[in-house]
Amino acid sequence: MADFKNLIEDMATYQHEEKIQPVSPVELDKIILNRRSVRYYTDEKIPQEVVEKVLHWGLLAPNSSNLQPWEFYWVKSADKKTLMVEALMSQPAASTAQELIVAVAKRKTWKKVSQDMLKQLNDTPNVPQAAKDYYNKIVPLAYSVGPFGILGPFKKLALNITGLFKPMPRGPASVADMRVWAVKSTALACENIMLGFSAFGYDSCPMEGFDSARVGKILELSCGDEVVMVISAGKRSPKGVYGPRIRMPDKNFIKII
Amino acid sequence: MADFKNLIEDMATYQHEEKIQPVSPVELDKIILNRRSVRYYTDEKIPQEVVEKVLHWGLLAPNSSNLQPWEFYWVKSADKKTLMVEALMSQPAASTAQELIVAVAKRKTWKKVSQDMLKQLNDTPNVPQAAKDYYNKIVPLAYSVGPFGILGPFKKLALNITGLFKPMPRGPASVADMRVWAVKSTALACENIMLGFSAFGYDSCPMEGFDSARVGKILELSCGDEVVMVISAGKRSPKGVYGPRIRMPDKNFIKII
Repeated sequence: MADFKNLIEDMATYQHEEKIQPVSPVELDKIILNRRSVRYYTDEKIPQEVVEKVLHWGLLAPNSSNLQPWEFYWVKSADKKTLMVEALMSQPAASTAQELIVAVAKRKTWKKVSQDMLKQLNDTPNVPQAAKDYYNKIVPLAYSVGPFGILGPFKKLALNITGLFKPMPRGPASVADMRVWAVKSTALACENIMLGFSAFGYDSCPMEGFDSARVGKILELSCGDEVVMVISAGKRSPKGVYGPRIRMPDKNFIKII
Repeated sequence: MADFKNLIEDMATYQHEEKIQPVSPVELDKIILNRRSVRYYTDEKIPQEVVEKVLHWGLLAPNSSNLQPWEFYWVKSADKKTLMVEALMSQPAASTAQELIVAVAKRKTWKKVSQDMLKQLNDTPNVPQAAKDYYNKIVPLAYSVGPFGILGPFKKLALNITGLFKPMPRGPASVADMRVWAVKSTALACENIMLGFSAFGYDSCPMEGFDSARVGKILELSCGDEVVMVISAGKRSPKGVYGPRIRMPDKNFIKII
């Protein structure tokens, strides 16, 4: 992990101050509270620029090593929409929706995006060598599990043995870990998308219970791609929200240690 | 899936109108743009009520069947913090942080939370039977994979065979699927938390590259719990942000079909 330590120290010399704009937490509170999972939408259309902006916000979510292991399918064609609604078990959150966005986690694109990152860093002035080294050396080590994850068990063993003596990342060391890895970043983006619709006064519903095999066929996904969720959007109808929001008490889930 | 169709129809009779508060998309834009992954923080403390509110926002994220498969550890004790920083490879995003929040995905708590949900629904007037049936009948079917996932392959086979004839959910049908399932909802909450800090004018950094085995020991996690990420927070120092934000072009990731 010497590389990792050097990286951090070298990067610290790369000063970059960014202007922070004053913001209001009260607005975020309202955006979060307005967001409910909506099952029935009205006929009101969403302006296309709103959807574009909301998707753009999705891509600004933090993500693992900026490898952006995601894709977002905006289903516009009427034919594809019909097929999608069927694959979504014809639930009204899909059938009455004005827009359908399919979030897909891509556990295999990190090599390509890593190369794109390198190119971009090489084209930018004053980027420290450490940042380039990160994509050249550390990323391939960190994310490789070999074809079909064949190197995973060896990687896991090596990390766990080294981990006996000093702190050591323990993964990703399997195809299952890489699925989790890609889904994690993609879900962060999904939340930006849903809050985005809420900020524009629209509603959304994240759907998970659907026929992912059929969705994969409609989108012509590749092996290794994983449908994370389908987000529908529109304006809520009066019967759109099932009931008052229910959450178990905060203390069930927040542990102070 | 007859149950599923009935549920949707019955729920639609359960009208609940919720007041939407007017919000400003411009504010969310600023909150999203202000959020950068910050590697060095100043000594400025975060008021404890801010952290509490931000964690509460996390719990308002949408999540799978409202089963809230998550836990958030707020590391306050100095001893635990020292151990955590070590497990986080002593990276400055951790060592200079004012606060550390560990997000943990819980793939095994759904049975308990499902019972809590049922209790809450039984205690609320006018909840349709369909909603109770959902937690009584559909949830156990949908999320069971048996001990060590032993029922998973049979479930997968049954779903895939039925899926030949009609749209059918294809999972979760393994322990790996349940990991993905719990991590997904937890990540949605993590994004609320990071945007939350941003909305209050504070910074954050989501960390993934750390010794999850050591973190698990510090938190005394149970088998099946998964550390999703550690979010550090504070006020950015002038060298806190590595460089201008880089993203590949939107069109690389947004597919219009």
